[in-house]
Amino acid sequence: MTLFVIGILFMLIYIMQMNIPTKAILLISCPDQPGIIARISDFIYKNKGNIIDVDQHTIHTEGLFLMRVEWQLEGFAIDRGDLEKHIKVLLNPLNALWHLYFSDKRMRIAVWVSTQDHCLLDLLWRVRAGELAGDIAVIISNHRVVEQMAIQWNIPFVYIPVTKDSKIHEIPQKKILLDYQIDTVVLAKYMQIVSSAFIKKSPIMINIHHSFLPAFPGAKPYNQAYIRGVKVIGATAHYVTADLDAGPIIEQDVIKVSHRDEVADLVRKGQDLERVVLARAVRLHLEHRVLVCKGKTVVFE
Amino acid sequence: MTLFVIGILFMLIYIMQMNIPTKAILLISCPDQPGIIARISDFIYKNKGNIIDVDQHTIHTEGLFLMRVEWQLEGFAIDRGDLEKHIKVLLNPLNALWHLYFSDKRMRIAVWVSTQDHCLLDLLWRVRAGELAGDIAVIISNHRVVEQMAIQWNIPFVYIPVTKDSKIHEIPQKKILLDYQIDTVVLAKYMQIVSSAFIKKSPIMINIHHSFLPAFPGAKPYNQAYIRGVKVIGATAHYVTADLDAGPIIEQDVIKVSHRDEVADLVRKGQDLERVVLARAVRLHLEHRVLVCKGKTVVFE
Amino acid sequence: MTLFVIGILFMLIYIMQMNIPTKAILLISCPDQPGIIARISDFIYKNKGNIIDVDQHTIHTEGLFLMRVEWQLEGFAIDRGDLEKHIKVLLNPLNALWHLYFSDKRMRIAVWVSTQDHCLLDLLWRVRAGELAGDIAVIISNHRVVEQMAIQWNIPFVYIPVTKDSKIHEIPQKKILLDYQIDTVVLAKYMQIVSSAFIKKSPIMINIHHSFLPAFPGAKPYNQAYIRGVKVIGATAHYVTADLDAGPIIEQDVIKVSHRDEVADLVRKGQDLERVVLARAVRLHLEHRVLVCKGKTVVFE
Amino acid sequence: MTLFVIGILFMLIYIMQMNIPTKAILLISCPDQPGIIARISDFIYKNKGNIIDVDQHTIHTEGLFLMRVEWQLEGFAIDRGDLEKHIKVLLNPLNALWHLYFSDKRMRIAVWVSTQDHCLLDLLWRVRAGELAGDIAVIISNHRVVEQMAIQWNIPFVYIPVTKDSKIHEIPQKKILLDYQIDTVVLAKYMQIVSSAFIKKSPIMINIHHSFLPAFPGAKPYNQAYIRGVKVIGATAHYVTADLDAGPIIEQDVIKVSHRDEVADLVRKGQDLERVVLARAVRLHLEHRVLVCKGKTVVFE
Repeated sequence: MTLFVIGILFMLIYIMQMNIPTKAILLISCPDQPGIIARISDFIYKNKGNIIDVDQHTIHTEGLFLMRVEWQLEGFAIDRGDLEKHIKVLLNPLNALWHLYFSDKRMRIAVWVSTQDHCLLDLLWRVRAGELAGDIAVIISNHRVVEQMAIQWNIPFVYIPVTKDSKIHEIPQKKILLDYQIDTVVLAKYMQIVSSAFIKKSPIMINIHHSFLPAFPGAKPYNQAYIRGVKVIGATAHYVTADLDAGPIIEQDVIKVSHRDEVADLVRKGQDLERVVLARAVRLHLEHRVLVCKGKTVVFE
Repeated sequence: MTLFVIGILFMLIYIMQMNIPTKAILLISCPDQPGIIARISDFIYKNKGNIIDVDQHTIHTEGLFLMRVEWQLEGFAIDRGDLEKHIKVLLNPLNALWHLYFSDKRMRIAVWVSTQDHCLLDLLWRVRAGELAGDIAVIISNHRVVEQMAIQWNIPFVYIPVTKDSKIHEIPQKKILLDYQIDTVVLAKYMQIVSSAFIKKSPIMINIHHSFLPAFPGAKPYNQAYIRGVKVIGATAHYVTADLDAGPIIEQDVIKVSHRDEVADLVRKGQDLERVVLARAVRLHLEHRVLVCKGKTVVFE
Repeated sequence: MTLFVIGILFMLIYIMQMNIPTKAILLISCPDQPGIIARISDFIYKNKGNIIDVDQHTIHTEGLFLMRVEWQLEGFAIDRGDLEKHIKVLLNPLNALWHLYFSDKRMRIAVWVSTQDHCLLDLLWRVRAGELAGDIAVIISNHRVVEQMAIQWNIPFVYIPVTKDSKIHEIPQKKILLDYQIDTVVLAKYMQIVSSAFIKKSPIMINIHHSFLPAFPGAKPYNQAYIRGVKVIGATAHYVTADLDAGPIIEQDVIKVSHRDEVADLVRKGQDLERVVLARAVRLHLEHRVLVCKGKTVVFE
Repeated sequence: MTLFVIGILFMLIYIMQMNIPTKAILLISCPDQPGIIARISDFIYKNKGNIIDVDQHTIHTEGLFLMRVEWQLEGFAIDRGDLEKHIKVLLNPLNALWHLYFSDKRMRIAVWVSTQDHCLLDLLWRVRAGELAGDIAVIISNHRVVEQMAIQWNIPFVYIPVTKDSKIHEIPQKKILLDYQIDTVVLAKYMQIVSSAFIKKSPIMINIHHSFLPAFPGAKPYNQAYIRGVKVIGATAHYVTADLDAGPIIEQDVIKVSHRDEVADLVRKGQDLERVVLARAVRLHLEHRVLVCKGKTVVFE
């Protein structure tokens, strides 16, 4: 009986999602000049698109213009398959970098964990709750601790132990990311350094680091925080680059601590931050709200 | 010697402000329809204006489109004096409410206080520091406690005692607001109820209330908070309407408290909030970043 | 193999807990007078107890002294079974209310939910992670939505539909609380009003309300918050009393929101608060850190 | 007339302070052993003292016991002048470090600034408002920018330019601290490095650093934060040691920022933090609530 009700529920969710009209999302960055907004909004209007949301930012010191525009495709004069071509014509004169996304193309995520499962469980829950514009396609781990959780949530689990010969062990991982057609890798407390060779070839990676970077990079940040005697601890979600814990920051948050908090308390309080900071970053990324520019992010919330 | 240096400093600030190019700021609200952004950005572009900042919001439940656009007037093809006329032509077909501001027209503020001076001193400091796009033209009070502060900061001070016959006492106040050409009245802990008759005829009023509204409206919110035993206290800056403490909220913030905090501690902690919450609201208002709609604010930060 | 490792892990946790020396926790409230701390600390010292933690608070307006003291039982001169008797002798002259707890007596929790499962899942995870000094003995719900989750986490699930005849439906609930020897009932988004008759006979109840009380009590607080246009939303964990949403507040927290947040966004952001605010309150309660006095809590953190 | 009223006000404040009963405050740190609390509370009780507040903390990893106890001197059996002697006898067997303070002995502060006056003005206001258990005895600066403010607030101002020969320029400073009988030096945005030779001989020094240390130590933290693209900025109040920005942290707080915030915005937002973080730290220090241990603080709030 229960399963029947749950089944109905899922069908309803599916039908509701069918009815959400598809939107196009365009991310642009180009040298600043007058008339960019007019050019783009005019293009959408003339082709009978209805802009849902537009956000723009100029980095004056760099002379860079950045923009995110989202419009309904229903009734749009240009066919979805031809849209890229038209946008190329529109934006080429601006010397622009741009990406086009469609809201009905759900992103595919690989969550990569070690033995801690709190961020993973949180992401699993959020995907099911419909908070994230993506699906967890596979869970990868160098331990078997979370395998049971993967089974219960019906997500494929791949066990890849970390060996000394890291160059070799990354070959199966690359294959997995290809096999599962992964768009985004989320390091949800993976606790291992990923080689720069792998980072270069991997889909974009988001990591959660358990400190307010740039304070306490590297290993054991809560221990570092305890020793230093800070009065706030934090968590940072960032894109992974070859420089350890130095990639563009997407989201950060902190919580107050006191001398009463021992390392175990910092871990406990910090985990509450890690969950929400990572989830917010993943949500923003999956909705194509983050642009990277000069090692920093512009987040169109 | 010191005065000479300070003199030079002020002259430099004056010259710097001269060099800041004047900007036009247009606030619009109208029924939603496709093409509004295209229409407005096209108008600015064709007249050789350079958009500095554009922010937009649609209240879907109300079918309302709201927008703030800011562009440089330098080299703009339409003369400043004729701009209103052109915008009328542009926006009339949209059935829009709109306001046009120029960034070099500094707003004139009346700060109205009772005996507490912390918000007043904070605003005085911020105006001098260049944080606010306005000047304090006059300080009004029903007590003489802050008169000395007004003198030290070279701001006219007007003493208007509150008498039982409130209808009469508001006549001089209206005259003062006219005499000093006030754009915005800031109730910086005035602690008196302003009559709805006066509110209707007054320039727009911003009030700071020392609670996170709608909790603890009216008198003695810190006492109310103490008795209820809340674990956070707050402050709320809002536009004043005839309904006490029920006007559109511009800004709110809170701070954690505990059972150790007695009423005097809540007052002390709360005053730190009152200062920054009021200052943020005044800054946003003076930069024409706040639109009121259906009893709520849209804040284009 | 995996199960074997997990088995070993659990055994290790068990052994570690065995080695944590048992502590006695004494909570006292009595009319203030000099010498109370001396009397109690002297009693513990003379009986060879080692105080781990002592915290005290005086409500001067009420003339009330409140204290929490925690000491190691290892080597304590008084037998555990006789301790109550000795404390009665010690505290009777002070006209004190007091409770004695032992840290190795884990509290038994009933979690009572409706259809939302985020707080339940969070509590399940925290119990397993060892964050809470208690165990979830049973999950009760008026829907079958969370039954599957209960099964996966190996917790007994009891389905009790809400009918119009609420007096009758509470009889099985009382029986369940007795059967499972429940110390604390946690309403983890139960969304139903519990009758005052039931509250009086029930073990102590903790509720999570999705607003910063006393703002937005009752139904649909996120809708209320949206309509009012607040710039922060909150969550409140409180003990349940016969007055709806008016019981002593244990913990509160807030998050900033803006005009961009629709009701669904408030729900999403609010759920992140609900989880941590409820978890913190439950943790503090289970560690016997909360004393209720005059409708408010004293929280010895 | 106004001055007369203000005069009366000050007299009232003075009389009120007269009526606040003097309290003794004892700060202790010693190797942990059973019975310390019993010994001290018993001593106070037997001499007819009434404990107002006691707070204690054990650093288990160091085996260190730390305690702050505050009791009323009214009716205390030991004469104030003899108290130190008795406490020596009491605490010598514990091998304790300890300090005894009396609440009616107001601390004398030197505020040392450069050209920024926001923290100075804030401290001046708080002293006058009665928030701080101390008085600003002198303002020292290497510029004359704040001289006018010092005059208006009736505080002696000493101008000591920073020259290349820093060893020489610190001689007059030491003399000033002696002349004004300074207990605490507050570096309220002094922006100069103080020599370690001077730090060693100076009264205890509190500094406000405009970042959440250990991130962004040294010069121009807001520029560093802008370049790194952090999503929160902070401020840290700490005791000054010979290691730049590495002294024990008393208080920290942060505020959220976004890509829209340019360096000037970070400065503006950060200054709001600097004021409250420094003020909280100074208040805690002046009330003898801070103990330093192993490069960290224990703050008895």
